Amino acid sequence: MSHDDDGLPARRRFLAGGAAAAAGALTGGLAPSRGRAAEAGPPDIPEWMKVPGADVGSQTYGTPSRFESGVIRNVPQRLKQYLSASSRTPLQDLDGIITPNGLFYERHHGGVPDIDPARHRLMIHGLVETPLILTMDDIRRFPSESHIHFLECSGNPGFEALNGRTASDLVGLVGCAEWTGVRLATVLREAGLKPEARWVVAEGADAAALTRSLPIEKCLDDALLVYSQNGERLRPQQGYPLRVLLPGFEGNMSVKWLRRLNVTAEPAYSREETAKYTDSMPDGTARQFTFVMEAKSIITRPSGTQRIAAGFNEITGIAWSGRGLIRAVEVSVDDGRTWQAAALQAPVLTRALTRFRLPWTWDGRPTVIMSRAIDETGYVQPSFAALTAVRGLKSFYHNNAIVPWRVAASGEVTNGYA
Amino acid sequence: MSHDDDGLPARRRFLAGGAAAAAGALTGGLAPSRGRAAEAGPPDIPEWMKVPGADVGSQTYGTPSRFESGVIRNVPQRLKQYLSASSRTPLQDLDGIITPNGLFYERHHGGVPDIDPARHRLMIHGLVETPLILTMDDIRRFPSESHIHFLECSGNPGFEALNGRTASDLVGLVGCAEWTGVRLATVLREAGLKPEARWVVAEGADAAALTRSLPIEKCLDDALLVYSQNGERLRPQQGYPLRVLLPGFEGNMSVKWLRRLNVTAEPAYSREETAKYTDSMPDGTARQFTFVMEAKSIITRPSGTQRIAAGFNEITGIAWSGRGLIRAVEVSVDDGRTWQAAALQAPVLTRALTRFRLPWTWDGRPTVIMSRAIDETGYVQPSFAALTAVRGLKSFYHNNAIVPWRVAASGEVTNGYA
Repeated sequence: MSHDDDGLPARRRFLAGGAAAAAGALTGGLAPSRGRAAEAGPPDIPEWMKVPGADVGSQTYGTPSRFESGVIRNVPQRLKQYLSASSRTPLQDLDGIITPNGLFYERHHGGVPDIDPARHRLMIHGLVETPLILTMDDIRRFPSESHIHFLECSGNPGFEALNGRTASDLVGLVGCAEWTGVRLATVLREAGLKPEARWVVAEGADAAALTRSLPIEKCLDDALLVYSQNGERLRPQQGYPLRVLLPGFEGNMSVKWLRRLNVTAEPAYSREETAKYTDSMPDGTARQFTFVMEAKSIITRPSGTQRIAAGFNEITGIAWSGRGLIRAVEVSVDDGRTWQAAALQAPVLTRALTRFRLPWTWDGRPTVIMSRAIDETGYVQPSFAALTAVRGLKSFYHNNAIVPWRVAASGEVTNGYA
Repeated sequence: MSHDDDGLPARRRFLAGGAAAAAGALTGGLAPSRGRAAEAGPPDIPEWMKVPGADVGSQTYGTPSRFESGVIRNVPQRLKQYLSASSRTPLQDLDGIITPNGLFYERHHGGVPDIDPARHRLMIHGLVETPLILTMDDIRRFPSESHIHFLECSGNPGFEALNGRTASDLVGLVGCAEWTGVRLATVLREAGLKPEARWVVAEGADAAALTRSLPIEKCLDDALLVYSQNGERLRPQQGYPLRVLLPGFEGNMSVKWLRRLNVTAEPAYSREETAKYTDSMPDGTARQFTFVMEAKSIITRPSGTQRIAAGFNEITGIAWSGRGLIRAVEVSVDDGRTWQAAALQAPVLTRALTRFRLPWTWDGRPTVIMSRAIDETGYVQPSFAALTAVRGLKSFYHNNAIVPWRVAASGEVTNGYA
């Protein structure tokens, strides 16, 4: 690629703040506070160059820099208990589409079990020709596959929870990883499905024995039994040593610590698909088995609690759809009056986070910015008003509304709902 | 996808061990030691279901299960010092193509500096119109990109180092991640290149002030200034807060802890491109500036120190090429006499690890298995004999020979070179 054909704006645009540059540039249009000329000579030799650094990794698993100690999962404060609770991915601090395992959101219903993989078993029974009990070694002998997919809690955020400060507060119950495991279809075929098989009831080996009914069509499509995430074995918080992954479906169905698959003709109507994880509608009825996570997006930079300067600012964020590929993301920098197509970072993968970006020169005046995702089915992410016009305000799950960020004259960014 | 059109072999093949299944199957062709029938009832409730598990992540960065404590970077034993040393990615324990940051290989020349990002500066000077000194905040204001690429040390392995036991011992100086940063071309354009600019001399802020000369063509092509790896900020071992990434080039050129880019007409002829990182040839001359990492592959499962059972075993591994896409990987299960095309896991990305797989039914007889990568230029990974016929044995760097694994009648897998 040559110097000229990369589609980027002309030289020396990015650090030239709007008003600041015109008034105070030292050289070449550079704002003095952001990039300075170096004629005065190189910076001092920092102290970290004057002494040897730390030894090569001393038989431990690596960790981030101490200067990043604030980048951790976002755990709600002052809960009555933390056994059935969640933590959120710090989306506003992350780049790209891969969520590192140490920062991937969690949701537990009976705490995180400490499972010895040598003693873990998966039982497959019910409407099968040959019931099976498999060890982890058995499961790792099957043909494997790896796929990059998002995973998202269906309550991300709940309809009442629009008062968060950060992107993580609002939609941090999502992450994206490269998952490796066995196609669930392969294991079900090993047992042999009987013709009347319609559901697979999955049970976790946690203290809640979390149970969900999985429709057979999904189990025979892209569903996986996963043992690795981002190269390494699943973390305990993600279901070590074995979980289901139903790409694009609400996260609760991707049962962790998987110990049992009971093949049935009817769903189990478990707690997690009756008392919970149903959608209360305005007319008093409830939608059940609303599996698919609809298209959603959020701007992660700039986002709540961040502060920007006038001039060039890249707008970037993530989009995803449980129905497949993201076709487009549109961004508004004028509170929804006009929309521009953002660039999508390749690779754009089905049921994975997709990173979008839009160059933006902020004029320093207060405004509201927001994004909306459009998926391959043509579905367009709705505004909160449009969503609640249909769904009402009794719902908790499956809120995929547009998230607006307010930008003040000071450059401070805050939640546009609040 | 239906039950039948997924291209997998017929039901109940995978757990049916060859000889073992014929002799001892309980039901449905299952080897008794690997998958057993469940008519006797479900397994006992394990103790981890009887008590609540651990609380949701308590304000810390997550870590792997204690049962995976042996999966760490592979650090050589009994070195005289560990400041200028390396650690290797545990390839045989990993799946997919993403290397988690906690396990990514390291190579340091003066230890790992502990850099405060607020005080870090990047100076760009030499043959530029406007010298610049940039803060990390400045760098993060430029337009960003994310790309999945491998990074590999050029001495992976050295020509003399073929006696390792594991895949990590042999070629563990490689990893693959999603990198986010700014195109180097964008930053150079901000400074303005003078017409005579031909090289960019990059200097690290470590105690070694590691210095390499980067050809301008690469700097204006796909080179990046990287601040994030797999979503989060670079680890200290990977150059926190800023490094160069030259996709496909030898790892040493992707200068870590980057503090200076000096644009020049000639290379610097630094230590790392004269005394080191040149290739001694049989005629006594040395090749210099051999930047590109040629196509390579290795089978990671089964691989050295692992043990397999007769019957179905998936062969899987990784392939990569500094010249672009992997077009094909061929696998031999008969010591190189015949070769079969392996399946490549999508997405296949340029200058990234590519996961390959081949189903294999092992008959229990001793053999040797190996893989060879073919890249989009048509280049075929050579045998060690073919490589040394050209390169001799005086070289240390750029050994991309085929790695054979010996499979004994016992199922034990060992280094086929040893």
